[in-house]
Amino acid sequence: MNRLTREDIKEWKAKRQGDTSEAAASVEEIVKDVRTHGDSAVRKYTDKFDGVSLSEFRVSSEEISDAYESLSGKYLDIIQEAARNIRRFHEKQVPSSWFDTSLDGTLLGQKYTSLDRVGVYVPGGTAAYPSSVMMNIIPAQVAGVKRIAMVTPPGPNNQVPIGVLATAQILGVKEIYKIGGAQAIAALAYGTETVPFVDKITGPGNIFVALAKKEVYGEVDIDMIAGPSEIVVLCDETARPGEVAADLLSQAEHDERSSAICVTTSEELAGKVEKEVKSQLADLPRTTIATASMDTYGGIIVTETMEEAVAAVNDLAPEHLEVMTANPYDQLGSIRHAGAIFLGPFSSEPVGDYFAGPNHVLPTSGTARFSSPLNVHDFMKKSSIISYSEAAWKEHADKIASFARLEDLEGHARAVEKRKERYDD
Amino acid sequence: MNRLTREDIKEWKAKRQGDTSEAAASVEEIVKDVRTHGDSAVRKYTDKFDGVSLSEFRVSSEEISDAYESLSGKYLDIIQEAARNIRRFHEKQVPSSWFDTSLDGTLLGQKYTSLDRVGVYVPGGTAAYPSSVMMNIIPAQVAGVKRIAMVTPPGPNNQVPIGVLATAQILGVKEIYKIGGAQAIAALAYGTETVPFVDKITGPGNIFVALAKKEVYGEVDIDMIAGPSEIVVLCDETARPGEVAADLLSQAEHDERSSAICVTTSEELAGKVEKEVKSQLADLPRTTIATASMDTYGGIIVTETMEEAVAAVNDLAPEHLEVMTANPYDQLGSIRHAGAIFLGPFSSEPVGDYFAGPNHVLPTSGTARFSSPLNVHDFMKKSSIISYSEAAWKEHADKIASFARLEDLEGHARAVEKRKERYDD
Repeated sequence: MNRLTREDIKEWKAKRQGDTSEAAASVEEIVKDVRTHGDSAVRKYTDKFDGVSLSEFRVSSEEISDAYESLSGKYLDIIQEAARNIRRFHEKQVPSSWFDTSLDGTLLGQKYTSLDRVGVYVPGGTAAYPSSVMMNIIPAQVAGVKRIAMVTPPGPNNQVPIGVLATAQILGVKEIYKIGGAQAIAALAYGTETVPFVDKITGPGNIFVALAKKEVYGEVDIDMIAGPSEIVVLCDETARPGEVAADLLSQAEHDERSSAICVTTSEELAGKVEKEVKSQLADLPRTTIATASMDTYGGIIVTETMEEAVAAVNDLAPEHLEVMTANPYDQLGSIRHAGAIFLGPFSSEPVGDYFAGPNHVLPTSGTARFSSPLNVHDFMKKSSIISYSEAAWKEHADKIASFARLEDLEGHARAVEKRKERYDD
Repeated sequence: MNRLTREDIKEWKAKRQGDTSEAAASVEEIVKDVRTHGDSAVRKYTDKFDGVSLSEFRVSSEEISDAYESLSGKYLDIIQEAARNIRRFHEKQVPSSWFDTSLDGTLLGQKYTSLDRVGVYVPGGTAAYPSSVMMNIIPAQVAGVKRIAMVTPPGPNNQVPIGVLATAQILGVKEIYKIGGAQAIAALAYGTETVPFVDKITGPGNIFVALAKKEVYGEVDIDMIAGPSEIVVLCDETARPGEVAADLLSQAEHDERSSAICVTTSEELAGKVEKEVKSQLADLPRTTIATASMDTYGGIIVTETMEEAVAAVNDLAPEHLEVMTANPYDQLGSIRHAGAIFLGPFSSEPVGDYFAGPNHVLPTSGTARFSSPLNVHDFMKKSSIISYSEAAWKEHADKIASFARLEDLEGHARAVEKRKERYDD
């Protein structure tokens, strides 16, 4: 593990950003092609990239129910319990439309409305996670989105992993298309003969998916441009080094570009964590990935004070932050930037990945500076409500017209003043 | 004005989108250049595009206070009153962090934190609006953003319009840079020697600004990619044609690509509105712009029923929607997509542009399907809080570990199970 200081953070962050210009050019072409040629372009790229020749994109209801039947009851129960927890947490986020009235009769407010149509991307291969299906679908359902379309690339035998389909069945998702990559994102953004266009696309994916989401952003909304995952564990001498190390590795095993950093006030703990990481890495099934990740993007920062440690955390703005200190609530107030904050020794990060209820779709790569976990608000939008009363108009019309003229917009001024003709009758 | 039907809407929307690929290539180059060369690149492009050779980007505090002194007291009073209204409306949006506890000691919640640094773009030339300064700055201030930097292109004499500077003074904004275009957006996204990097960029601008915002999106957050403005007036036979026409024209005068559409159940009203538009256009100062806008993007849709009329409104998903019907609240429930909804005959659109309190930064070009008016939430973000209790861990650890193994992530399972060693001691 690398020893870092707070001064290294900026450089360390920059190191994680690769050059994506080549992929970007190819994504631009794919998106344009699907926009123009619809299904036939989607078919062409599915053949090229997934090696599958698709006659029908849509997953049949039999495929979905067969997957459900073939997953063991033990897993079905766990998925169902997790889904209930996730639904309960997200139901607490549902906002209410509100308004405020004045004595003169004016009403101002905000009306919340759910989106009409949402598309959810579920990655294929080893990253085809039932948990991601839940984390993307449930907030949209809680928000009241009526039409949810899921896309996921077909595997080598034109199959979608049964865990993914069984989870869709549990959640009642019926519209699933076996398409992936930039072509799937373009199909959702612009619509094709068989895939309907949506208003927003969410869900993680590889670099082609991420760039395609950026390309279509504006035409539709997107959740975020997800980068590789990261964890920071903030701890003092009361933490158990084995637990710190295990939690760091749970992130490192995701991807060679994942990052796991321990920030601590205890030099002694730091040394023990390093040893634990080494020994736990030895027999981890995904040890190659985790070792590469720890060697390149793993690190330990030892600070003099807890204030400095928290400042380092805020500089990192990590996706996942664990706080294992004597009293984690002492630090909560000064932590400004983190996607999810796990407090105390029993809040191991996988607790949040799968089960506790909060969303595991989180801002990566320091974007917790300005982004939030996926949530119900992401699937709703607001409309301002302005009901100006006759009395308010009488009192303020001249001021509003003056303001318009200050901005050289005579038509605006005249529109407000036009109401004066009512009193000429 | 063009007579349209609901079937024309899709085609009509597509017509408004121009080809931006040439501008996009130039923006990409400018952004890359500023990212690499900082101030010297910003200087180069300011010279090239604004025709101004800048030694110092920062607007001095004297320039700001001089502008304030030179604006007439009448205008200062109106701006101050509008600012109070806008602040009051936005203060009602401030969300609270929340949490929920379980009997077993687990705490789950969401913590709201304001962004640290925000950049606001204020266009130059005839579009340099004091109202835009207020609409962008006030929500950020209400959210608690500590550092707000404003950028605006220098005018021909290296001046910033006094209305803009005076408004900045009223709001207490001190950090203003005389830079504009894609170079200003890049400077805010990556930082230069003199311009600090920010976490989010908001504010309208021309096509170069819009494309630059899309280019840096992901590195920083942005409010939206703003397109040309639009208004839809939904009305029945009770509306006054002169008022409908005046309000349509208040939008049409903005830009040749602005759009103004009247949707009505009354053929008689439609005819009268057409006549009124023609006659009011005749002596409007910005008649060339407004006429071009009305000829190309102005329209009237007459429907048989109010249900169809509302359906047409939802298809259009307009930035501004005025409802001038016998009882506008009857339609409010079925209106799903609109940036701001103005109810009743006294809620002329400029009332919301300047004075009432809701934000005038609104989703354009049909993006009200998935976007909201600029608001306090745009300047805050959430962190999930997960404090899992020992009891909860004991009850659910095995299920969580199973879920992790279903997803083939052994390191995740081991992290949760690592806590079992506590009981071996």
